[in-house]
Amino acid sequence: MKITRRNLIKSSAAITVLGAFSRSAEAFEDPLPSWNNGASKKAIISFVKDTTEKSSAKYVEPKDRVATFDQDGTLWTEHPLYTQAMFALYRLGTMAPQHPEWKETEPFKSVLGGDREAMSKFSEKDWMEIVAVTHSGMGTEDFVALVKPWIATAKAPRFDRPYTDLVYQPMLEVMKYLREKGFRVYIVTGGGQEFVRVYSDQVYGVPPEQVVGSSIVTRYDISSGKPILMREPKPFFVDDGPGKAIGINMFIGKRPYAAFGNTAGDQQMLEWTQAGDGARLMMLVHHDDADREYAYGPAGGLPDTHVGTFSEALMTAANKNGWIVISMKNDWKRIFAFDQ
Amino acid sequence: MKITRRNLIKSSAAITVLGAFSRSAEAFEDPLPSWNNGASKKAIISFVKDTTEKSSAKYVEPKDRVATFDQDGTLWTEHPLYTQAMFALYRLGTMAPQHPEWKETEPFKSVLGGDREAMSKFSEKDWMEIVAVTHSGMGTEDFVALVKPWIATAKAPRFDRPYTDLVYQPMLEVMKYLREKGFRVYIVTGGGQEFVRVYSDQVYGVPPEQVVGSSIVTRYDISSGKPILMREPKPFFVDDGPGKAIGINMFIGKRPYAAFGNTAGDQQMLEWTQAGDGARLMMLVHHDDADREYAYGPAGGLPDTHVGTFSEALMTAANKNGWIVISMKNDWKRIFAFDQ
Repeated sequence: MKITRRNLIKSSAAITVLGAFSRSAEAFEDPLPSWNNGASKKAIISFVKDTTEKSSAKYVEPKDRVATFDQDGTLWTEHPLYTQAMFALYRLGTMAPQHPEWKETEPFKSVLGGDREAMSKFSEKDWMEIVAVTHSGMGTEDFVALVKPWIATAKAPRFDRPYTDLVYQPMLEVMKYLREKGFRVYIVTGGGQEFVRVYSDQVYGVPPEQVVGSSIVTRYDISSGKPILMREPKPFFVDDGPGKAIGINMFIGKRPYAAFGNTAGDQQMLEWTQAGDGARLMMLVHHDDADREYAYGPAGGLPDTHVGTFSEALMTAANKNGWIVISMKNDWKRIFAFDQ
Repeated sequence: MKITRRNLIKSSAAITVLGAFSRSAEAFEDPLPSWNNGASKKAIISFVKDTTEKSSAKYVEPKDRVATFDQDGTLWTEHPLYTQAMFALYRLGTMAPQHPEWKETEPFKSVLGGDREAMSKFSEKDWMEIVAVTHSGMGTEDFVALVKPWIATAKAPRFDRPYTDLVYQPMLEVMKYLREKGFRVYIVTGGGQEFVRVYSDQVYGVPPEQVVGSSIVTRYDISSGKPILMREPKPFFVDDGPGKAIGINMFIGKRPYAAFGNTAGDQQMLEWTQAGDGARLMMLVHHDDADREYAYGPAGGLPDTHVGTFSEALMTAANKNGWIVISMKNDWKRIFAFDQ
């Protein structure tokens, strides 16, 4: 066909029409466009049909439609280190001049000296100590005012992008799909509740009241005539492992119908979800894509890691219980919104 | 006018029409029909207009519209004793045969002996001990299964009606009005979160995830192959006094625009609410109606009491801060739904 102005107009109009049609057809048919066809995608769609179509024997009333998502490694990248840990290290750096004693005291000494080897071996207690000094000693509003500019400007080392860009597009689609079908979507994170709430609404569409997380003790105080909640260097609630089932019961008071995680810290959340009757969906993200994100296990023969471990024991539990393991490499067409 | 069949039809039709008109006009004009006209009613209506009419300088986005209500003495009767305390005493009675040692040990001895004088002097610690033994030692689901039949059948002594009938009709109207205007309505109670959640949806229209309350420690356990949350005889969170501001921040993560209470245990909730900008509504229920409910203070020269004390200090704080004190006697046309 010779390209004439007339043909050009005709064909571009046809393309526009076809494009609009295929886009709307895709939107209609496929709520999960960043997922490859496969067992994982199929399981999500079947679960939604089972729980939301009135004719289904497993229909769930809208008020009971609750879905819970772990954050680190399930909704966004957790390597080389949790984003909140990066924030803590940054804070430690800015606070160091006022704490000359840190130069001689662990775990601060290793952080300030940039000793990555030592840091990779930090215990839970070491991290707790770092979080305690960097996350306390101010009111909740002052804490939020510290996190806000940091999260808006800090960049993840490998990708040289804001941490909030490293959110998994396929999981955003699942959250959106569930919300459109009447589910309330919660984040249930081992991370700090107050920290995650700073960006959860903007990044995930999850409002503060739907963020369940770990917290430190706060103390009600009057400062310059105004009440503040003073953050104390003392853990209050650890929303991890068994704490996730406890936190879900305490904050939501309803058992989730769907739960998404990626480590042993999510196991009890999945068990608690599965123990309900009717249709329940339990999924675990397996990071097996070194090219596009990271690959770690040790499950599946992948490198072992200190951050976000997917153990062989967890894989065994998943197989035994029928939990669906999401392969980032095979199930996800696209990982980040910025991917082509 | 002679009553003929024709006239009868005409007049009854007119009455029907007029009745429907006046009912709809009333519904349109008065969202708070059980409130007498006065400063309290006016303050509620002004607050709603200020925060929800788009043209208002104090307009609040729907997502931020949060209102919090204390329960005991604010939403329902708390005399002669908190309903949950009545449940604890009932449980103590049913458990006593398995605990012969209680006959010789306080505070159990006084309860089992029916010594009301001694019970009226129970300390916080005594009550904590009673709650600990009666509210723990079972999974959360078993606990709910104990509360459900009790709350459905137990009756309040003075009124010989179920406790859930002793809910204040004017407050139900405020909750409904706020919900209709886009507010999320929370209960923020010193009472047990798990206890209140059993009936909150049915009685107040407040779902479990919007009940913030006190709690005991729960432990994740596997029993007969199923996960349970075992209730331990150990307090976890006391949602009273400063704890109400802490609980609001932890569970909701947003500052309320309106808060309703009736004792010093609500003071920090009201302070925390008032410390926000824009329009804020702080109200305290004063029980000054011995005829229709109870009269106690000691504020206002009313009898002093151990349950739900409205102290002179609280009245001073209310006056100083511009909190509105609701007089049950003068502000409420009707107290209970069963009142004429």
